[in-house]
Amino acid sequence: MSEREYVIGFDADDTLWHNETIFENVHVRFRALLARYHDAATVDRTQFATEMRNLELYGYGVKGFTLSAIETAIQLTEGKISAEEIRQLLELGREMLAHPVELLDGVAETLEVLAPAHRLLVITKGDLRDQERKLRKSGLAERFRHVEIVSEKDERTYAGIFRRHGIAAENFLMVGNSLKSDIVPVLALGGSGAHVPYHITWEHERVENVPAAAGRFFELKSVRELPSVVAAWTRVTG
Amino acid sequence: MSEREYVIGFDADDTLWHNETIFENVHVRFRALLARYHDAATVDRTQFATEMRNLELYGYGVKGFTLSAIETAIQLTEGKISAEEIRQLLELGREMLAHPVELLDGVAETLEVLAPAHRLLVITKGDLRDQERKLRKSGLAERFRHVEIVSEKDERTYAGIFRRHGIAAENFLMVGNSLKSDIVPVLALGGSGAHVPYHITWEHERVENVPAAAGRFFELKSVRELPSVVAAWTRVTG
Repeated sequence: MSEREYVIGFDADDTLWHNETIFENVHVRFRALLARYHDAATVDRTQFATEMRNLELYGYGVKGFTLSAIETAIQLTEGKISAEEIRQLLELGREMLAHPVELLDGVAETLEVLAPAHRLLVITKGDLRDQERKLRKSGLAERFRHVEIVSEKDERTYAGIFRRHGIAAENFLMVGNSLKSDIVPVLALGGSGAHVPYHITWEHERVENVPAAAGRFFELKSVRELPSVVAAWTRVTG
Repeated sequence: MSEREYVIGFDADDTLWHNETIFENVHVRFRALLARYHDAATVDRTQFATEMRNLELYGYGVKGFTLSAIETAIQLTEGKISAEEIRQLLELGREMLAHPVELLDGVAETLEVLAPAHRLLVITKGDLRDQERKLRKSGLAERFRHVEIVSEKDERTYAGIFRRHGIAAENFLMVGNSLKSDIVPVLALGGSGAHVPYHITWEHERVENVPAAAGRFFELKSVRELPSVVAAWTRVTG
């Protein structure tokens, strides 16, 4: 039995609560709005290209998505989109921000098991106020010692979090649905990762190769497997 | 001479660098865009009302401002605004985000004097990525031990920062241009405040009454006065 304090970081969107399903629903309505002008594939491809072009300035989150959707709509209709239709896009964005928070299956029970024994953090991208609001609405806030809302989830970001919170990489396990943002950078720093795939992955978060890190990388089907994974992980590393 | 560690928090927009002048310039162009429909006062009043209505969902920052400006333009033109004009509003928003960072007079020199002797923090509202970008561009990043980008600057926020960074309120001085966000909540918690007015104040940040807190509140004309104010403050409280 180790005296070490283990720290478990959780991604939020599509790890604690549903998010990509909300975006997917909005994409369906966005395609319908532009269906007179272009097929769905063109709409999706152009919207993604606009988002990527604006990412450096806008960052992640619903506000940037909405601005990019308006830009895409103007571009794809060659300026023929009406102000009323743009008003509908603004309304779509506000609906996303006001959307109820729906926890993923098993999240509440899993956190209840893990919180008394380990230090839990949230580490998430997105708009500051939107993520704070979702955490508040989720009813999970008190399970977490700290909440880190960051503009990018790369090695530099995780290294900064380790430094700020006095975390040794070998005591840290990150749980999330994105190999790119939640797993790869943490493994690179010597930490551990538990990947819990969500049924939809945003194109920007896809990676080709599953990381190889014996004893430090766990592939889960459901967050419900996490307590036993954590038990095995602390035995091996402890 | 005291052994206490003093912590000085700095607001960013309109305290370290110019911000409201950029918004003011955009307001001028926004009024011009809508001049065929309404006078400047109506445009300003409606935009402010839209921003306040959306504040809970959008928070502070350029992206929310831009979304509100598009909404205001559609409303004030009763849907007659063209897609091309909305594209210009998107472009205005991007210009604001890409705008060069212009330090206020005396900021660089003042931080150079204070940084070796005290722990300096940035505490600012706004969009996460935008504020990080401005700090990077400012060349000031290394002067600050921590940067806190928060969704609101009220007593709860400052109390959280004190807790996270192990700061005793009596050792903390906040420097900023907004009485409402930088000074009043800090004084209420027992900290100190140095108010350095900017020549423009956003309507949302205005307060009626100057706070009274003998020995803990300082009214400055320029940030250049800060080193001597800090020297006096540490003598009194030390």
